[in-house]
Amino acid sequence: RKFIRRLCCALEGRINPNAIGCSLIKGFQSDKSGNIRQYSHLIAEKLKIQTAVVMGAGSAGEVADGNFSETTIGSVDREVGRILQVLIETPHFLTVVSNDADGVEICSALKNIVACGAGFLDALDHGNSTTAILIRLALIEMIDFVDVFFPDTKLSTFFQSCGIVNLISTCFGCQNRRISEAYIRSQKTLVKVEKDLLNGQKLLGAEISEQIYHMIVRTEAEERFPIFFIIHKIFTREAKPEQLLESMRNSHCAHFRFRHNLDW
Amino acid sequence: RKFIRRLCCALEGRINPNAIGCSLIKGFQSDKSGNIRQYSHLIAEKLKIQTAVVMGAGSAGEVADGNFSETTIGSVDREVGRILQVLIETPHFLTVVSNDADGVEICSALKNIVACGAGFLDALDHGNSTTAILIRLALIEMIDFVDVFFPDTKLSTFFQSCGIVNLISTCFGCQNRRISEAYIRSQKTLVKVEKDLLNGQKLLGAEISEQIYHMIVRTEAEERFPIFFIIHKIFTREAKPEQLLESMRNSHCAHFRFRHNLDW
Repeated sequence: RKFIRRLCCALEGRINPNAIGCSLIKGFQSDKSGNIRQYSHLIAEKLKIQTAVVMGAGSAGEVADGNFSETTIGSVDREVGRILQVLIETPHFLTVVSNDADGVEICSALKNIVACGAGFLDALDHGNSTTAILIRLALIEMIDFVDVFFPDTKLSTFFQSCGIVNLISTCFGCQNRRISEAYIRSQKTLVKVEKDLLNGQKLLGAEISEQIYHMIVRTEAEERFPIFFIIHKIFTREAKPEQLLESMRNSHCAHFRFRHNLDW
Repeated sequence: RKFIRRLCCALEGRINPNAIGCSLIKGFQSDKSGNIRQYSHLIAEKLKIQTAVVMGAGSAGEVADGNFSETTIGSVDREVGRILQVLIETPHFLTVVSNDADGVEICSALKNIVACGAGFLDALDHGNSTTAILIRLALIEMIDFVDVFFPDTKLSTFFQSCGIVNLISTCFGCQNRRISEAYIRSQKTLVKVEKDLLNGQKLLGAEISEQIYHMIVRTEAEERFPIFFIIHKIFTREAKPEQLLESMRNSHCAHFRFRHNLDW
């Protein structure tokens, strides 16, 4: 994701206008005023081509091994979605095409923040049940987040591979979780941990949590997104990892207030 | 659950009619023609009292240890729900009251079937990503199942602790998963495995999968619920565990057909 802008600039004007773009990049671009933007939008704009996204659970290695995998293709253009489906679907790699391309891309970015939270819980020696609670509360926060900031997305997208599957598999076994745990246990700076364990690459979940944090603060929505809010604060050491549990409690109450009062 | 009918009969007529019942029992009662029934309904009818349910993630041991836990209280009567909430909520044990009591109870029963499927995948040496895919597809099957057989339940219930949290934590760490894996690896009969590993108790997920299987077959809904369908067949050794993957593929297609065509 670091090189995509430069790469697009190099390709600008050299792409067949009938070409189809397809982004697998997770995360957002931020401009100087802190507005975030999907990478697929950047690609589409720079290269002037239709750009779809492919986001789903399963590591590249597992897919290559022929493990049972599935993914979500997000494309506002139905035909582009179908072409990509024909190109990439195999009996072991199932696909669903969704026209909610933004929802697909945003789901897949936000889940990385949650995985960092799962890593913090590991550092506090919590078990799978607590991780499962975090997943539920953060899923609702993700749904609320798109409701507020990307209101054209669809709830059903969260039931796709890019949503719940991606969230669960990321929380149970990815780099974001492991590195976040190491960050807490080691007490090193994030830059040092990234240098030691990621060869200097940025930790995706930490980067996205910072972007989302600024959106939340700017719109004074801290009470509505307490989990997203605290994860960035933990990364900056302004909050202790234990405060994640407090935020889960607040998140639980927030969702109850915002959503579940409607139940009666 | 084995003794509840007998216990209710012993208590019949001896209960203060203002008493509140509260069931934590997971599973269904079956009558001779294969109709299933929630245990809370049996208790309410026999004892002639309001009966709520409490269902959620987190083992009794974890809750007792003061781990961060949450649960769902299901009660059609709002006042009863609130009384139970006041009685059981603590700073570490959060509760949400839902008036979709049937949904709460049914979610919590069905998830045990899925955990057995996760155990079969373990016996086939699949990883967390495949388990996450199973969870997603089976969650959609659960939602479809209540749509068909219990149409008054609510989608939002699946986002509560009794739904998604319970499903994830059960699939990642419960008896149903472990015993189901052992059943496949050992090639013993289920009765023998239950005798050796459960001290002769019935494996809950296997019992529920049989009940659900009969409902599916009777309504010719095999195509709509391929995962629920095959799990029972694997327990009876009429199907091989590998067929679960095939059913996941069919489930994926079934859901695409039944639900996601609406996306366009």
